[in-house]
Amino acid sequence: MTKKKVANTNICRRNDFYDSTPENLIEEIMSKQLANEEKWLEIGLPDLVEQISENYETYGGINHLDGKDLPSKKIVIELLEDILSILFPGYLGNEKLTKSNINGYLTKVLTSVYVRLVKEVDKSLKYFCRKIKKCPEDVCLKMAQVIVRELLEDICRIRILLSGDIKAAYCGDPAAKSFDEVILSYPCVLAISTYRIAHELFVRRVPLIPRMMSEYAHSITGVDIHPGAKIGKNFFIDHGTGVIIGETAVIGDDVKIYQGVTLGALSFPKDEKGHTIKGRKRHPTVGNGVIIYSNASILGEKAVIGDNAVIGGNVWITSKIPSETIVTVKFPELKLTKK
Amino acid sequence: MTKKKVANTNICRRNDFYDSTPENLIEEIMSKQLANEEKWLEIGLPDLVEQISENYETYGGINHLDGKDLPSKKIVIELLEDILSILFPGYLGNEKLTKSNINGYLTKVLTSVYVRLVKEVDKSLKYFCRKIKKCPEDVCLKMAQVIVRELLEDICRIRILLSGDIKAAYCGDPAAKSFDEVILSYPCVLAISTYRIAHELFVRRVPLIPRMMSEYAHSITGVDIHPGAKIGKNFFIDHGTGVIIGETAVIGDDVKIYQGVTLGALSFPKDEKGHTIKGRKRHPTVGNGVIIYSNASILGEKAVIGDNAVIGGNVWITSKIPSETIVTVKFPELKLTKK
Amino acid sequence: MTKKKVANTNICRRNDFYDSTPENLIEEIMSKQLANEEKWLEIGLPDLVEQISENYETYGGINHLDGKDLPSKKIVIELLEDILSILFPGYLGNEKLTKSNINGYLTKVLTSVYVRLVKEVDKSLKYFCRKIKKCPEDVCLKMAQVIVRELLEDICRIRILLSGDIKAAYCGDPAAKSFDEVILSYPCVLAISTYRIAHELFVRRVPLIPRMMSEYAHSITGVDIHPGAKIGKNFFIDHGTGVIIGETAVIGDDVKIYQGVTLGALSFPKDEKGHTIKGRKRHPTVGNGVIIYSNASILGEKAVIGDNAVIGGNVWITSKIPSETIVTVKFPELKLTKK
Repeated sequence: MTKKKVANTNICRRNDFYDSTPENLIEEIMSKQLANEEKWLEIGLPDLVEQISENYETYGGINHLDGKDLPSKKIVIELLEDILSILFPGYLGNEKLTKSNINGYLTKVLTSVYVRLVKEVDKSLKYFCRKIKKCPEDVCLKMAQVIVRELLEDICRIRILLSGDIKAAYCGDPAAKSFDEVILSYPCVLAISTYRIAHELFVRRVPLIPRMMSEYAHSITGVDIHPGAKIGKNFFIDHGTGVIIGETAVIGDDVKIYQGVTLGALSFPKDEKGHTIKGRKRHPTVGNGVIIYSNASILGEKAVIGDNAVIGGNVWITSKIPSETIVTVKFPELKLTKK
Repeated sequence: MTKKKVANTNICRRNDFYDSTPENLIEEIMSKQLANEEKWLEIGLPDLVEQISENYETYGGINHLDGKDLPSKKIVIELLEDILSILFPGYLGNEKLTKSNINGYLTKVLTSVYVRLVKEVDKSLKYFCRKIKKCPEDVCLKMAQVIVRELLEDICRIRILLSGDIKAAYCGDPAAKSFDEVILSYPCVLAISTYRIAHELFVRRVPLIPRMMSEYAHSITGVDIHPGAKIGKNFFIDHGTGVIIGETAVIGDDVKIYQGVTLGALSFPKDEKGHTIKGRKRHPTVGNGVIIYSNASILGEKAVIGDNAVIGGNVWITSKIPSETIVTVKFPELKLTKK
Repeated sequence: MTKKKVANTNICRRNDFYDSTPENLIEEIMSKQLANEEKWLEIGLPDLVEQISENYETYGGINHLDGKDLPSKKIVIELLEDILSILFPGYLGNEKLTKSNINGYLTKVLTSVYVRLVKEVDKSLKYFCRKIKKCPEDVCLKMAQVIVRELLEDICRIRILLSGDIKAAYCGDPAAKSFDEVILSYPCVLAISTYRIAHELFVRRVPLIPRMMSEYAHSITGVDIHPGAKIGKNFFIDHGTGVIIGETAVIGDDVKIYQGVTLGALSFPKDEKGHTIKGRKRHPTVGNGVIIYSNASILGEKAVIGDNAVIGGNVWITSKIPSETIVTVKFPELKLTKK
C-alpha cells in the first residue's frame, strides 16, 4: 500500500554482515554452551570472583582498596555546580532569588560548600601526604580550611573577572543576542568559570580536585583548559569544541580564541633515566589583545605571541611572533576539477 | 613478591612537583592560618556574604535578581527530550508503545508539553518584552500559545524530514547496520532533531530557548548548529565532533558533512561606533547534493558552494565554488626522514 | 551611581534584531491567533493526535511500535558504568571497598550485571533474529548467556590491558601527577575502557549495544572509537576531543594518539546497485610504537603505518609509511604582515 511505499522509497539495500550468518551464529553459540550454562551464577561465578579479587591484588595500579578516601567525583561536581550558582545567582541555581532573600541564600550555600569542600580537599591532601609520608592529618585539615576559605573569599574577584569574560563573549560574537543568552547557552561560560575556580585550587597545590573539575567542563564543552594555565581578563572562546590550553600556557587580557585552537607542548625532554620531565614550562605565552582563529596550533614554550597579534585559522606556530602582526598561512592552492 | 612487581614494572619514575614541597607547603599554610580558622563560619562568613551581595549590586551583568523569571535550563531540556520521544516513539521514551495505546500516550505527552512549553516560552517572551517595555503580559501568553501550537502542529512535517535524515545516515555510512542503530547511537540524530525543533522556535523569534536547546545538543554531540541556520532535507553529519554551522548558513538538500567542518563567518563588519553589526548574512550557502569532508573550513557569505560539489578534507574556502566541481587541496608534500 | 557604571563600562551597544520588531511581532502574532486559541487543547489536539499516529503508520522507518523490545539506552549505560566500577574498584563506584568486603561486593555487582545484561543482549539478539526470521527465542537467550558469561570472564584480561593503558597515559603526559589523577580525570580512561568492553560484545556479534556504549563514551569524551576496531596494549589518547577510530582500523601496541586524529575511511566502493558496500576493510593499520600528533588524518585501508613511525601534526596520509620513519609536512610558509 502506498503509505508503506513512502517509507521505503530509495532506501539503499545491501547485504548486511548480520544477514549472512544466522546458522553459523547458532552453531557457534551452541558449541560454546557450558554443561549448566543457565546455572553459571551458582557454579561459575564464585571462581570468577576469586580470580578478579586476586587480579586486584596483582594489578595495584588501577584499584584503590583499603587506601584513604579519594575525593568523590560526584561530590566534586556538585560542589562545582554550587559555586557556579553563587557566581551566577538566579541563572543556574533552582531557587528564586530576590534582594530580600539573597543573604540567607548565600549564608546557606556558602556554609554547605565550605563544609563539603573542606572534606574533599582534606581527602585529596591526605592522599598526597600519604604518598610523601610526612604530613600529620590535622595539618591536612588545617590546610583544607585555609584553602577553601581563601577560595570562597576570592568569589568577588572571580565574579569581576567573569563579568569581563561574559561581556567579551557578547561583544565578540555577532550571534549573541543578550548577556542572558551568553550565560544560559555559551559553552565558554562553563569552561572559563570552571577554569577560574579550579585554578585557585591548583595554585594552592590541591591534588586531583582541580583536574576533576576541569575534565568535567571538558566533557560538557569540549574545551580542555588545564587548571595550571594562567589566563587574563576579558577572555572569550567561541564554539570551543577541541580547544586545548596546556598546563604552563600563559594568556594575557582581551584574548579571543576559536574552536580547535591548541596551545600545546611541542616535545617532552627526558631525564637521564629516559623519563619525561614534568613541571617545566612547555606551553606558549600569548600577549594581550591577541585573536587566534579556528584550528590554529601554537606549540612549545618558544611560541611567544606578541600583543594584538592576529593568528589566522589553521596556522602552525612554534616560535616567537612580534606584536601587532597578522599571521596567515599561504594556503596550498585549491585544485578544482569537473566531476 | 612477584605479584607486586608486575604492577610496577617499567613505570617511568620522576620527581613530581608535589614530591619536593611538603615542608614548604606546611610552613606556607601555617603562615596563612587565621587566629580562629576553625571558627571562620561564625566569624568570617557574615562579612563575606555582605561583600558578595554588594558585588551582586555592582556587577549587574552577571546576576539575575528580582527580574522576571528566565526559562529554566532543566525544564527546557526535559521538554526537548519529551518532544524527541514523540518524534521517535518507542526509541527514546520509557513507555512500551503499541498501536492500541499510542493515541492515549500522544494525548498525554502533547498536553504536558503544551502546558509546560507555553510557560517557558511565555517567560522568555516576557524577558524580551521587559527589555523593549512595550508588550502587555497577556500578549506574551497569547504569543506563547500560538508559537507552541504551531510547533506541535509541525511535528508530522519534522518527522518526515527526520525520516529522510535517518535514511541519509544509514545509506551514507558503511558502518551503519540498521535504521535502529542509527537512531539509537548516531550523534547526528540528536544534533539534527534538536536543530529542527529549535529552528521552529527561532524563526518565531523566541529568545533564549532555541539556543539553550542547541547548546544542549552541542554539549552531547560536539555538533554546534545555530538554530538560525536553514538546512534542507536528507542531511547527514558523520561523527560530528567539531562541526559548526553558523546562524546565517544555508544548506540545501542531500548534503553530507563530516567531523570538524566549519560553516563559519569570515569577519565582522563594525558599525560607526566600532561595534560588531549583528543580524546580517555572514555565513556560507551550500547547494544541493554537496559533500564536505572532514575539517574543511567554509567561511563568509561569499562562499557559495554550487550543487553536487565535493569539498575535500582540510580545504579552506572563502569564495564561490561552481556546481559539479571537486575541490581538493594540493597537500604540502610530506617529509619522510629515518629516525 | 558609580557602581552601576562599573557594570556598563565599554559594553558594545548595537541594534539587536529583537529591538526593532515589537509592533510587527504583536501584529503578526495576533493575525495568527485562532478563534479559541486558549481552548486548543480541547479543540485542536485530538486532530493532531490523529495526524501524528497516522504519520507513525506512514513513516515506519523512525518509529518502533509493537515490535520486540529494543535494548534500553538508560539500562545499557547503567550496565556500562557498573562494569567500569568493577574494572576500577574504589574509584568510580560509590561503595567503600576493603579487602574484607571486596568478594561480597563483586558477587553482588557481577550477579546484577549478569542478570540485567543477559536481558538486554537477549533483546538485541531477538531484534536481530526478528529480521532474519530464523532464530528460535530460546537460542537468543542461550546466546545471551554465553556472551555475557564470556564478557565477565574476560574482566581480568581487560583489567591487565587497562593497567597498561593507564601506565601509558601517566608516562606519556608530563602533566599527569599520579595514576589516581589519570583514572579520575583523563577522558581516555572512559573512552578506552568502554571500547575494550564494547569490542568484546561486537566480536560476539551483539547488535546495537556495542555502538550504544561507544556513543555514550563519545558523548562524554569526544573520542569516537568504533567497537569493531582492533587496538593493542598500552594505548594512550591525550586530550582526545575529535579523535575518530573507524570500524576496521587496526592499531598495534604502545601507540600514542593526540586530539583530532582521524583513522578514517577514504572512499566507499558501491555495489552493482550503486549502494555502499559494507563490512569490508576500509580503515588504516597502525604498527607498534607509533605516535600520531594532533589533527593528523590517516585514511583508507592502504594507509599502513610501520612500527615506531612518528606522524606529525596535521599530516594527511593515504598510503603506506615505512617503519622507523618520521613523517612531517612542509608547512606552507607563514605570511606576517604588520597591522
